[in-house]
Amino acid sequence: MLDEVTISKGIINAYFKKITNALELDVAIVGGGPSGLVAGYYLSKGGKKAAIFEKNLYIGGGIWGGGMMLNEIVIQEEGKTVLDDFGIKTESYESGYHTADAVYVTSTLIHKAMGAGLKIFNLIAVEDVAIKDERVNGLVINWGAVNKLDWEVDPLTVKSRFVLDATGHLANVTETLVRKMGITLNTATGGIIGERPMDAEKGELHAVENTREVYPGMYVCGMAANAVYGGYRMGPVFGGMLLSGKKAAEEMISRL
Amino acid sequence: MLDEVTISKGIINAYFKKITNALELDVAIVGGGPSGLVAGYYLSKGGKKAAIFEKNLYIGGGIWGGGMMLNEIVIQEEGKTVLDDFGIKTESYESGYHTADAVYVTSTLIHKAMGAGLKIFNLIAVEDVAIKDERVNGLVINWGAVNKLDWEVDPLTVKSRFVLDATGHLANVTETLVRKMGITLNTATGGIIGERPMDAEKGELHAVENTREVYPGMYVCGMAANAVYGGYRMGPVFGGMLLSGKKAAEEMISRL
Amino acid sequence: MLDEVTISKGIINAYFKKITNALELDVAIVGGGPSGLVAGYYLSKGGKKAAIFEKNLYIGGGIWGGGMMLNEIVIQEEGKTVLDDFGIKTESYESGYHTADAVYVTSTLIHKAMGAGLKIFNLIAVEDVAIKDERVNGLVINWGAVNKLDWEVDPLTVKSRFVLDATGHLANVTETLVRKMGITLNTATGGIIGERPMDAEKGELHAVENTREVYPGMYVCGMAANAVYGGYRMGPVFGGMLLSGKKAAEEMISRL
Amino acid sequence: MLDEVTISKGIINAYFKKITNALELDVAIVGGGPSGLVAGYYLSKGGKKAAIFEKNLYIGGGIWGGGMMLNEIVIQEEGKTVLDDFGIKTESYESGYHTADAVYVTSTLIHKAMGAGLKIFNLIAVEDVAIKDERVNGLVINWGAVNKLDWEVDPLTVKSRFVLDATGHLANVTETLVRKMGITLNTATGGIIGERPMDAEKGELHAVENTREVYPGMYVCGMAANAVYGGYRMGPVFGGMLLSGKKAAEEMISRL
Amino acid sequence: MLDEVTISKGIINAYFKKITNALELDVAIVGGGPSGLVAGYYLSKGGKKAAIFEKNLYIGGGIWGGGMMLNEIVIQEEGKTVLDDFGIKTESYESGYHTADAVYVTSTLIHKAMGAGLKIFNLIAVEDVAIKDERVNGLVINWGAVNKLDWEVDPLTVKSRFVLDATGHLANVTETLVRKMGITLNTATGGIIGERPMDAEKGELHAVENTREVYPGMYVCGMAANAVYGGYRMGPVFGGMLLSGKKAAEEMISRL
Amino acid sequence: MLDEVTISKGIINAYFKKITNALELDVAIVGGGPSGLVAGYYLSKGGKKAAIFEKNLYIGGGIWGGGMMLNEIVIQEEGKTVLDDFGIKTESYESGYHTADAVYVTSTLIHKAMGAGLKIFNLIAVEDVAIKDERVNGLVINWGAVNKLDWEVDPLTVKSRFVLDATGHLANVTETLVRKMGITLNTATGGIIGERPMDAEKGELHAVENTREVYPGMYVCGMAANAVYGGYRMGPVFGGMLLSGKKAAEEMISRL
Amino acid sequence: MLDEVTISKGIINAYFKKITNALELDVAIVGGGPSGLVAGYYLSKGGKKAAIFEKNLYIGGGIWGGGMMLNEIVIQEEGKTVLDDFGIKTESYESGYHTADAVYVTSTLIHKAMGAGLKIFNLIAVEDVAIKDERVNGLVINWGAVNKLDWEVDPLTVKSRFVLDATGHLANVTETLVRKMGITLNTATGGIIGERPMDAEKGELHAVENTREVYPGMYVCGMAANAVYGGYRMGPVFGGMLLSGKKAAEEMISRL
Amino acid sequence: MLDEVTISKGIINAYFKKITNALELDVAIVGGGPSGLVAGYYLSKGGKKAAIFEKNLYIGGGIWGGGMMLNEIVIQEEGKTVLDDFGIKTESYESGYHTADAVYVTSTLIHKAMGAGLKIFNLIAVEDVAIKDERVNGLVINWGAVNKLDWEVDPLTVKSRFVLDATGHLANVTETLVRKMGITLNTATGGIIGERPMDAEKGELHAVENTREVYPGMYVCGMAANAVYGGYRMGPVFGGMLLSGKKAAEEMISRL
Repeated sequence: MLDEVTISKGIINAYFKKITNALELDVAIVGGGPSGLVAGYYLSKGGKKAAIFEKNLYIGGGIWGGGMMLNEIVIQEEGKTVLDDFGIKTESYESGYHTADAVYVTSTLIHKAMGAGLKIFNLIAVEDVAIKDERVNGLVINWGAVNKLDWEVDPLTVKSRFVLDATGHLANVTETLVRKMGITLNTATGGIIGERPMDAEKGELHAVENTREVYPGMYVCGMAANAVYGGYRMGPVFGGMLLSGKKAAEEMISRL
Repeated sequence: MLDEVTISKGIINAYFKKITNALELDVAIVGGGPSGLVAGYYLSKGGKKAAIFEKNLYIGGGIWGGGMMLNEIVIQEEGKTVLDDFGIKTESYESGYHTADAVYVTSTLIHKAMGAGLKIFNLIAVEDVAIKDERVNGLVINWGAVNKLDWEVDPLTVKSRFVLDATGHLANVTETLVRKMGITLNTATGGIIGERPMDAEKGELHAVENTREVYPGMYVCGMAANAVYGGYRMGPVFGGMLLSGKKAAEEMISRL
Repeated sequence: MLDEVTISKGIINAYFKKITNALELDVAIVGGGPSGLVAGYYLSKGGKKAAIFEKNLYIGGGIWGGGMMLNEIVIQEEGKTVLDDFGIKTESYESGYHTADAVYVTSTLIHKAMGAGLKIFNLIAVEDVAIKDERVNGLVINWGAVNKLDWEVDPLTVKSRFVLDATGHLANVTETLVRKMGITLNTATGGIIGERPMDAEKGELHAVENTREVYPGMYVCGMAANAVYGGYRMGPVFGGMLLSGKKAAEEMISRL
Repeated sequence: MLDEVTISKGIINAYFKKITNALELDVAIVGGGPSGLVAGYYLSKGGKKAAIFEKNLYIGGGIWGGGMMLNEIVIQEEGKTVLDDFGIKTESYESGYHTADAVYVTSTLIHKAMGAGLKIFNLIAVEDVAIKDERVNGLVINWGAVNKLDWEVDPLTVKSRFVLDATGHLANVTETLVRKMGITLNTATGGIIGERPMDAEKGELHAVENTREVYPGMYVCGMAANAVYGGYRMGPVFGGMLLSGKKAAEEMISRL
Repeated sequence: MLDEVTISKGIINAYFKKITNALELDVAIVGGGPSGLVAGYYLSKGGKKAAIFEKNLYIGGGIWGGGMMLNEIVIQEEGKTVLDDFGIKTESYESGYHTADAVYVTSTLIHKAMGAGLKIFNLIAVEDVAIKDERVNGLVINWGAVNKLDWEVDPLTVKSRFVLDATGHLANVTETLVRKMGITLNTATGGIIGERPMDAEKGELHAVENTREVYPGMYVCGMAANAVYGGYRMGPVFGGMLLSGKKAAEEMISRL
Repeated sequence: MLDEVTISKGIINAYFKKITNALELDVAIVGGGPSGLVAGYYLSKGGKKAAIFEKNLYIGGGIWGGGMMLNEIVIQEEGKTVLDDFGIKTESYESGYHTADAVYVTSTLIHKAMGAGLKIFNLIAVEDVAIKDERVNGLVINWGAVNKLDWEVDPLTVKSRFVLDATGHLANVTETLVRKMGITLNTATGGIIGERPMDAEKGELHAVENTREVYPGMYVCGMAANAVYGGYRMGPVFGGMLLSGKKAAEEMISRL
Repeated sequence: MLDEVTISKGIINAYFKKITNALELDVAIVGGGPSGLVAGYYLSKGGKKAAIFEKNLYIGGGIWGGGMMLNEIVIQEEGKTVLDDFGIKTESYESGYHTADAVYVTSTLIHKAMGAGLKIFNLIAVEDVAIKDERVNGLVINWGAVNKLDWEVDPLTVKSRFVLDATGHLANVTETLVRKMGITLNTATGGIIGERPMDAEKGELHAVENTREVYPGMYVCGMAANAVYGGYRMGPVFGGMLLSGKKAAEEMISRL
Repeated sequence: MLDEVTISKGIINAYFKKITNALELDVAIVGGGPSGLVAGYYLSKGGKKAAIFEKNLYIGGGIWGGGMMLNEIVIQEEGKTVLDDFGIKTESYESGYHTADAVYVTSTLIHKAMGAGLKIFNLIAVEDVAIKDERVNGLVINWGAVNKLDWEVDPLTVKSRFVLDATGHLANVTETLVRKMGITLNTATGGIIGERPMDAEKGELHAVENTREVYPGMYVCGMAANAVYGGYRMGPVFGGMLLSGKKAAEEMISRL
């Protein structure tokens, strides 16, 4: 016979084992969009202890909606290699262009990344970073619901050897770091430059080039990378995003 | 070199082939929560043409959040067989109870159901049903965004041999049917009775029992089934939900 | 040299001549959607003094958006005759079905109806009806902005020999009349029955059949007609709507 | 007999033929107010492939409301020539001043511009511009509803030889270009100066003078022109607006 | 030299003398619109201790806005006698109709009523009534701001020999009494009937006829009277409103 | 040296020990206002395992605000005995009436109740009750933030031998039970009658009289008791509230 | 017998005579608070044609609420002379301080100012100023409701020889002028300095000193004067406000 | 027998004695969080006349919610001495770390501080400071509800020898002072520097170091101190906060 208290205890125990275990990480990834998921996948494959913190109920970010709510995505030749690693089949459309169902891509990215060992904490927002000796060494987290309601509730802290800012074009974590530490970044202006208008060709290349350590202990990838370094906006094509996540993972693995 | 117009055309073409193809279905499922996904999986496995219409950006509904935002779920022995079909590994917790990561469960349900052939249309809300000769024969759909903004924009129509109401405890589709047709349902009162308070034991059994054809051409499953027939509320355990989706699929398959 | 005060006076004078002249009408039409515009066109062609009162900034209602924001409409053979009267060219799609650009249709309906003499007062909401000797004999109007803000500002009154409720599926004017007068309508139940689910075939026929005088001095047309008399919902096709407006006009002309 | 699926297919097919065809344009006009409509009319008359993208359900912008919701407009002698081209009759008010019904003017501008071949995409917002080799070469578009809800859904792209910013006093497109490209404009300050207070006389002249190419590939007209170049605000008179749209069209035609 | 603390003390002392003195009244009037002000004026003239409680910052209600924000009112011959008592000059418009500036009328009603001794408590909402031995014997009051914010703050109580419901067409106080006491009123149905549609002629007469004691200890006047007894809605003319307030005052004076 | 991870672990561990321990209770109290706190105090003094679940951040409910934001309360002779038990000093005001600082009273009620062993879970809302064999046997709980945002997140369950509905005049728990179980209560009408208008004298007596077991396993106290049984509203005096909480505790203690 | 159309016509005619007459003024006052009303009173007494434009339904601004919703005001000896001119009796409180009922003061200020000939247009917002030859020569007005809803509706224009900014501490009109004209004011910094913290003594003196012509054709008074010139904030005492309004009137009268 | 008017009078009298007495203080504390409460406790113990002004209904601020809604707090060895002064027992967790129930800590801080003589005014917001001779000498206060609704109601004034800004990381009072006085603070930059990211170790030390007189007559403590002087953010540990409040009290006591 089913007992409600046993069920409640099961959930509580499992979660608190998981969250307690995640208080010390190799890499704390902020944002559960495609570049964060790809980074988490390769980090986990490489044996590193990584976790994603995502403020929303769901994981995947804007990729669910394809282009203009038409839930399909386009991927170019170069990016296809990443989808191949995830075992996602695409349909060839024109020479060098492939299409894939956006919902299928999203669910598979999550499914495979977690299968590789990545932990995902949805419903948790990142309020701030933790600093030790002029190096980012963790995240200040709170419930996404507290954040959304702007309630006056104190946060908790997660320690990590690296933080990965995969928060999209607002580059929230980097922005917080710059605003609160008054630091100079390794960008052309020393500050966050902001994404430029769309140029699909250049945007894709920039996303990968701009994937780097933006401050000791902190990497940036995906749209956030272009936002920080002033790259062009990417078109509705996903190669650059995926390759950026892969590059971020590889660079951090080599240093852990 | 990447061309933005080619990318846009790729998305547009792929989507409109997909949506045009989905205008005539065997089963139109409303709601992308666990029971709808499970039903869609078995329908697709059984060779039927099924599609889910979900108003939100993301698929999965409340299951992403586990219990009280602790993103783990509990599953009892009976329900575990369905997770086994999806290849989802669980952790044994107490005799007869298993836990699983909620995000992993959700993404795998979607990934596997689509792998079996199910089509999913997120971002699309169901406004009404279509009727022909005192039988439900399709859905009246609109963008979820139009619905949310309460904008004055007309809908389109999807035809289907069966509709499955998997909209959760509000039983939206059944409610619309009853309110607008003034019909008598095959329930104890002839109307929608509403979910009773929580009794995990009974709620789980009821969810399966109450999974039936509520009106010619329309089935109801999951929490919506308990809401329509006055079953007890289920506890934070997922077996009944999954088995309900499976039963709905099997019954419709046998009649298609 | 341009003088701002002269410009302001020009607008004020022109408007107040127009509104003062509209305080006594043959027909006061509530709602600027397609059926109201068509009714207004034929009434004006027939030499009657008619005006539309519409709470929004723009005229046309939901027709601007086509089906699901795809700004095209479909019209069947029967309804095409009305578009022909307005000189709107359509594209033949399948036997018996024609398509037309939704924005072009909307602007042409307004352009031609006003060319025929119809007056249109946008930005004005109808709060209530005026009654004399158990007959509707006018409207109680206010600014749409006052209505939207729920500000405590008194209305003014327009007198008319007939009122036409073309407010869509909420049938606002009829609803107000029934709620505030406690009357019995000439419907099956004596009250407003409400629109039934979609059945394009029946819905189109019903819209025309249900276009009648619902209470002495008050007609109802378009979706409001189906809502009052319990007709089926129309599909995303516009013939019934247009023919309903035409019928309402013809019946009132014959009695004026 | 009417079939709902045929109706839905008719709308889908017609729209996707139209939107696909509009992915490559001579001129992409942003904003469906009077200056954008006039520009679209003359461009179409001149045989150019032009389309308007407007975020709202309706076309026309603020002109529907006349002055202070008194739905009449005033037009001076110079501007009357444009209304004459559209066949809009006005009423002479004082020497050099004419009045016209605002709703009639609006619907006629749309009706005639589309009659001349202009395509109009209402319900679509412009998020950004596309750039190629330091020249504007298209628009980044999304549903207006997505934009309004601030949903995280990716856009699509339209390519065009020229973009016309007809977005009114906020000059949204130019503002986006300046903010995201960090460029210097050909204005007195190198940036967007902003509209000055009202001076009807000067404002009318400035609107025409300031109608120019503000950056390679991008023109600005109407209130946006005065906002970019720091012209005076126009009074509630429409000549300058209409003449500005005409000038923009003529200049682009001569270069296409 | 000005001292801030002395100023603060002056306000606090004066107010608390005033509010303490108002805790026991002859008549507690709810609502500061025209009928409440007129009733307060005549009660004060008649030597009774009366106070108005009004939830808004300002007194006067909807009369400030005239008809449709055109800040003029019309008054017929019968009602003019009340304005004469207040010394308000009107302009004769047509035989039997007079106009007056709405702002002037409002400020003068307040100015003269307070000059006669009426106390006014703006910013105070009425939450409930107090009952003793099946008779209304006071009001339960709270700050209007608390009420608007729906904050969980307890109220205070005012005792009075009569309560006058002058809250307009919602008849808030009577509605609260009926809902919470489950009583039968002396109306045709025993409940609150609700205002009927507009009939200026009848509405004006009804407002005066329906001004009566609706329950032991509680009178109703103005639009609230028509709402309770099912009278017709008044047109944008103010005679009935004013005469109703006067009648309510006279009846209560005769019983105090 | 302070370590953030140790701090986070300390909080997580302490809380999860506390919440796990509270999954099985003698009495689960819903609502942290004065009657709930008083009940919790006496239950804990009596050696019973009790916990309060309160949806807000803070405990105390409306008592913080005194009367109309004047943060003082009045207590009559009878109620003073409860304050004496808590060691709260009051100031004598008139014969039989005492005043006390509202903030001091609130903080002391909480401080002393917890000192006696009561557990308090703020920020947790009660969504539903759990039922077993026609008896209430627990609560269905969720985060107050989830509830406020209306997010789709599943709840957890707490088991208890008794539930005490101390939710104030809405009697939320009783209302949920009645609505979802379709049961008949032991009230005059068999349903929830609703609070009557204010009569301080009777209201105080009623609050104590109406404190009873409203359904097997569920008691009701404070304002909720008057709401369920149709008692009069209490004045801004706190004796009845406190005595009601005490009586509820005593009755449950005698049965545990 | 009462006729609704006659009533509506009466209001329309009276208003449009009034507004047309007000399109050319000696002084256009923005804001209906105490300093604007006092200025309007003395201007009217001095035979000048003045009108107040106020965006709210009611006139008077914050003075209705006294201090902290305790509806009493304090006035010092110097300011009392202005209240004496209005015939407002005050109560002596301490040497040099008087109190008065806030509602009575407000209604009397309006009543007497209009009695002196001032016109008041409530419900009308000021969007901008009109400029001619580097001098303010009028206002750009719109309905307050349009402004509040942020609707896209064009304004009208009022011409005046002087504009008086009496908009309170935001100094809205001056702020608009500075922002849109890019001018240098005759203040210490050349810009709007902003009100300093409270110093009742200095604030009162500053309010009068700072009442001046801030730009050719535009005066500023009351709190707006202190905001523009950086004066100290006034305490909850009204002398400075009233004397400022009087000084503004006197200066403008001497130049008209 | 209970009399409602006597009850209302009791509350009114008690409050106005209390507020009148608090118009002149030794120390006016802004914000009722932990550092403000601790400061108030030691000031009162030291015989000084202190009061807290807090805009919310409840006192305590964010401490009620523990860390991430897990209502426990951690305290290190150094901070424990303050809890000892309040008689709050903690549980030893790891060497140097203690935990305590957040609700118990909060209620005890309030209970003990008021027991020591501190006055607390909840529901009152601070809008501004009062200045005399380049020294802060009081607060400008208003109802929190007025503030929240942004209603146009004037404030009152409280005089005090010192003001303590305990408003948390926004440092509202200091920010207001700087913005409105244009002054230079005794910080590294002369302005408010803003809190840096989290470093629990340094943050705790900084909170105490930065507790100082920020401008003549005004101290700052707790998170506000770190915000003003650019200290690191504290972790979810409370020692620094409590010690900061104590230090502020001691410094002010020594100067009073």
